[in-house]
Amino acid sequence: MSNAPVTLDGWYVLHDFRSIDIARWQAASAAERVNALTGFHSLIQEYERVNESQTGSFGMFRVAGHKADILLLHFRPTIEEMIETKEHLQQTAIASYLEPVHSYLSVVELGGYLAKPGVDVETDPYLQSRLKPAMPDMPYLCFYPMSKKREGQDNWYTLDNEERVRLMRSHGQIGREYANKIKQIISGSMGFDDWEWGVTLFAHDPLEFKKIVQEMRFDEVSAKYAEFGPFWVGKRTDAPTMVQVWRNMPQRMMGRKNFE
Amino acid sequence: MSNAPVTLDGWYVLHDFRSIDIARWQAASAAERVNALTGFHSLIQEYERVNESQTGSFGMFRVAGHKADILLLHFRPTIEEMIETKEHLQQTAIASYLEPVHSYLSVVELGGYLAKPGVDVETDPYLQSRLKPAMPDMPYLCFYPMSKKREGQDNWYTLDNEERVRLMRSHGQIGREYANKIKQIISGSMGFDDWEWGVTLFAHDPLEFKKIVQEMRFDEVSAKYAEFGPFWVGKRTDAPTMVQVWRNMPQRMMGRKNFE
Amino acid sequence: MSNAPVTLDGWYVLHDFRSIDIARWQAASAAERVNALTGFHSLIQEYERVNESQTGSFGMFRVAGHKADILLLHFRPTIEEMIETKEHLQQTAIASYLEPVHSYLSVVELGGYLAKPGVDVETDPYLQSRLKPAMPDMPYLCFYPMSKKREGQDNWYTLDNEERVRLMRSHGQIGREYANKIKQIISGSMGFDDWEWGVTLFAHDPLEFKKIVQEMRFDEVSAKYAEFGPFWVGKRTDAPTMVQVWRNMPQRMMGRKNFE
Amino acid sequence: MSNAPVTLDGWYVLHDFRSIDIARWQAASAAERVNALTGFHSLIQEYERVNESQTGSFGMFRVAGHKADILLLHFRPTIEEMIETKEHLQQTAIASYLEPVHSYLSVVELGGYLAKPGVDVETDPYLQSRLKPAMPDMPYLCFYPMSKKREGQDNWYTLDNEERVRLMRSHGQIGREYANKIKQIISGSMGFDDWEWGVTLFAHDPLEFKKIVQEMRFDEVSAKYAEFGPFWVGKRTDAPTMVQVWRNMPQRMMGRKNFE
Amino acid sequence: MSNAPVTLDGWYVLHDFRSIDIARWQAASAAERVNALTGFHSLIQEYERVNESQTGSFGMFRVAGHKADILLLHFRPTIEEMIETKEHLQQTAIASYLEPVHSYLSVVELGGYLAKPGVDVETDPYLQSRLKPAMPDMPYLCFYPMSKKREGQDNWYTLDNEERVRLMRSHGQIGREYANKIKQIISGSMGFDDWEWGVTLFAHDPLEFKKIVQEMRFDEVSAKYAEFGPFWVGKRTDAPTMVQVWRNMPQRMMGRKNFE
Repeated sequence: MSNAPVTLDGWYVLHDFRSIDIARWQAASAAERVNALTGFHSLIQEYERVNESQTGSFGMFRVAGHKADILLLHFRPTIEEMIETKEHLQQTAIASYLEPVHSYLSVVELGGYLAKPGVDVETDPYLQSRLKPAMPDMPYLCFYPMSKKREGQDNWYTLDNEERVRLMRSHGQIGREYANKIKQIISGSMGFDDWEWGVTLFAHDPLEFKKIVQEMRFDEVSAKYAEFGPFWVGKRTDAPTMVQVWRNMPQRMMGRKNFE
Repeated sequence: MSNAPVTLDGWYVLHDFRSIDIARWQAASAAERVNALTGFHSLIQEYERVNESQTGSFGMFRVAGHKADILLLHFRPTIEEMIETKEHLQQTAIASYLEPVHSYLSVVELGGYLAKPGVDVETDPYLQSRLKPAMPDMPYLCFYPMSKKREGQDNWYTLDNEERVRLMRSHGQIGREYANKIKQIISGSMGFDDWEWGVTLFAHDPLEFKKIVQEMRFDEVSAKYAEFGPFWVGKRTDAPTMVQVWRNMPQRMMGRKNFE
Repeated sequence: MSNAPVTLDGWYVLHDFRSIDIARWQAASAAERVNALTGFHSLIQEYERVNESQTGSFGMFRVAGHKADILLLHFRPTIEEMIETKEHLQQTAIASYLEPVHSYLSVVELGGYLAKPGVDVETDPYLQSRLKPAMPDMPYLCFYPMSKKREGQDNWYTLDNEERVRLMRSHGQIGREYANKIKQIISGSMGFDDWEWGVTLFAHDPLEFKKIVQEMRFDEVSAKYAEFGPFWVGKRTDAPTMVQVWRNMPQRMMGRKNFE
Repeated sequence: MSNAPVTLDGWYVLHDFRSIDIARWQAASAAERVNALTGFHSLIQEYERVNESQTGSFGMFRVAGHKADILLLHFRPTIEEMIETKEHLQQTAIASYLEPVHSYLSVVELGGYLAKPGVDVETDPYLQSRLKPAMPDMPYLCFYPMSKKREGQDNWYTLDNEERVRLMRSHGQIGREYANKIKQIISGSMGFDDWEWGVTLFAHDPLEFKKIVQEMRFDEVSAKYAEFGPFWVGKRTDAPTMVQVWRNMPQRMMGRKNFE
Repeated sequence: MSNAPVTLDGWYVLHDFRSIDIARWQAASAAERVNALTGFHSLIQEYERVNESQTGSFGMFRVAGHKADILLLHFRPTIEEMIETKEHLQQTAIASYLEPVHSYLSVVELGGYLAKPGVDVETDPYLQSRLKPAMPDMPYLCFYPMSKKREGQDNWYTLDNEERVRLMRSHGQIGREYANKIKQIISGSMGFDDWEWGVTLFAHDPLEFKKIVQEMRFDEVSAKYAEFGPFWVGKRTDAPTMVQVWRNMPQRMMGRKNFE
């Protein structure tokens, strides 16, 4: 019998990080810019449509630092749709100015113990709301991928079940203390991407990201068994705001001389 | 006498990952685009010809996320042909728009124990069908390279034969439980590429990729001895579909001003 | 009860490292250069305004070596403002010539033990001056990120509180010996960026950077538990000086032939 | 007295890996292409001249996968000549289309025990043929760099001489079993490049690369002490063949519109 | 009392590695090339001026392999001057064709035990000549950065002073055996760059680089405690030679068609 815990799996998640190619954008003509921004606006509207129809969730975030400028965060029922969200972006004129600098593919994951006897996962409102989450109504986002360590004595995957359950219980306890301040979505990515999980946190005050990550790092399960990837922090935005940000970027002055 | 297990080796495998250079493609003229897509269509037909003649296998996949847009997956009898598949792509106009972002070279590998007494590997239909596999008729693909660990106490290559056989048996058991849901092709890459094996999985439901990878990670041989590279996920497609995807990408508006 | 130490958190910190795209700058026309430098000058003035109003701090540094040419160092009360500082730069013509090669997002962090009974952190002048630091009046800067190790026996996060306090006390002792020579700002970045802390040192004589880093490396807490990221060294500058540096870069000679 | 083994050192070796810049090449005019190919042809002739005069060896290889397209493999008596081979390439028009994506600098190395009493290394025909090797007459090549491990208990450099000799003897035994199938050139790179050795294998059947690498990996010296870099596989070619490959790459259609 | 050894620190060192952008250089017009080479010649003369005035040292080296084409090696009294050497290069037309691919910032470092009682470091001719070294009169150069290990039992920084002194003594012994063949400059880079030291070796015969590095690797202090970065090898050159190398690179043929 397998040692692996059972999980409940919900919508797929695509974190699509983009950087603006500033030099290209500055060099675009006025007509190209109007065209690109009109297409961008329509694209975001298309992405957002799933929010209304509850056939997925979508949010756009302005990202701090050099690692990305924009995060397009998609929740959808299938990987096919995730490929399509990328292709639809590629089929707009803005794609020339939005480099795909990073991404992460995963699937919303809940502990299998939530599937209690008598509960129909497919219809239970609580489980369904967690497996197919609406975009949380909190402006700041933190994302990082992580894995569990398999090094010498510190090997999560050779611990017995009871030990893993005990360790995760303490971890969950910390999460619950932050329940009012932080909304957390865990997504599994074994078989889909380069780490084992993605962690997406939402908060009104981004300082809470630091507090929960720090508190958890001293918790035994993270202290001994967690490996962390890069971190991104962003703030929710919408198409009209981003269009304004782009419009405020100057066009390059063109004279007789070619540039490059 | 050598400690190394005997293997049966079949067709060579090339995973050729490509990303579309969107800015270049948008800037191409209508005539260039027609020319490039015509050449692309012919190239894929040439690649597919081996499927009919059973002199190899070929499949094309749309890939999720930023790591690649397209996977060209080739099975062929020789490495010479693998070099040629790359050169033939380079000899089409589409090559300007399809950056070679990653690749993996390996050879289909079966356990040597399958060469039982009385079985002629060269003619046995079952072994031949596994050594020279047709492209599985399942739409989703997952690919990752892996190696066996050689760190301190956790050194696969210093275990004795019996221990390695015992560990792999349990591993194979899990694979067999997924037999109806997942088709798996293992290819060896020692001497050919940067990890020791490539693992290519095919499924109707990509959630099965997560399930098998997770279940195997708790299995002793993976938990203690496996090191995993990056993961790619894609979905089977064909030339007409891809041509349509490319046609839907807008051409850049050209005015008086040069772009860059 | 949590094992994690309490911290006091102040202004957010963004280290924004930029490299000059020399080939582009040389190719810019005289008019473009004037335009870009005028915009750059205004941008830096805007950044510096927070120094006067004490609503943040800002300093610009010329960086040695190939890793960056300029460091824009921002202290601000919110992450929202950090995103805006990037967007404001992107909204100037100079952005085409200033590649964002690295950045680091963190928040000024003090040990929680400084919040003594009877001290109101929000109004205490000493704590406020350290949580919301003015840019130190010392010309040289050294920046590096770091984390505490979690490897086998050397795991900072599984030490008990007394041991961590004891180790940090010795560390702090070294810092105090350099008090007159080095001004040090520690900022926490768990949940914000890829390491756990950023360390920003200021000095009149940059040789002191080497001395303190070397002395601390032999201290037990660093010797056993510290992991260091890359190091950057720079010297404070101002907009007029940088404008002069840029003006002295020659314009490319343009003849009949296009360049690339 | 030093613990380090004595070595015999022969010709220097430069593995110069190049990738074709397809988009540039497609954009080159017919005249540029003729000019570049003529220069390329002359360059390869110059490189090959050392084969006839036995003042070095040279071979060109088409490489599989995305890591490189062409390997220029030089054996020469001095590092000065290795710098010149690069500069001579840079002094041809083809250099614009051949990016230097990787290289490896080393020197042919034999075990010092081969310098038996009574043998004059400088004139002994066998040793000279191994120290100054002609390019083997086998079409397939495999190259990888490697180092010996220095991690905790697994530290090659703290083993005593007898143990190292014992371990290498078994290793050499495997090599000898492949003597008819594989020609192996070991070159030392301490002080020259980022790993400690380069291994260049030649074979008629590239499957032998996998077999020998796998068999050796189970040998104690590799299992416990070897660290491997990336692997490249290629097939011998000549200037006329490569010129034909390049000629078959289409020229971009040029219309009224500029491309990028 | 601190466990850290005292050091004597001399001139700062900047290893400034550059690669030639061949495609740009080939595309430059005849006038641009003359202009760029004239400026380059003047720049190198300016750099070399410190050799005569003994206010620093400077040497230029042609580098083997793909990692760099040219090394500009500066010794100067201040970091301010190191920033200026970069800016002066950026203020010449050649900067468009010389990409800054790597660099290393450090300071010449001697063991503090050389500051014997009665010796005035500031005036002692021997110490001054080592702290402010003239460029050695040997044509070949080898550079690599290194650190001392801090892993589990192999932690240099937790050894006691006597043990470290004993280990370094044996190491120094090997260095002295090579005194006539190799000139070695050790520079410290804690607080300045990503490794702890830079090692710059000079020789008439570059094979000596391999011999000393190999012999030292078997020495206990390197075997157990050394971590090595990348290696670069080059040969001393001067401005007229480099100008000739550049002049021999062909100009691209320009016809009616734009290139890219």
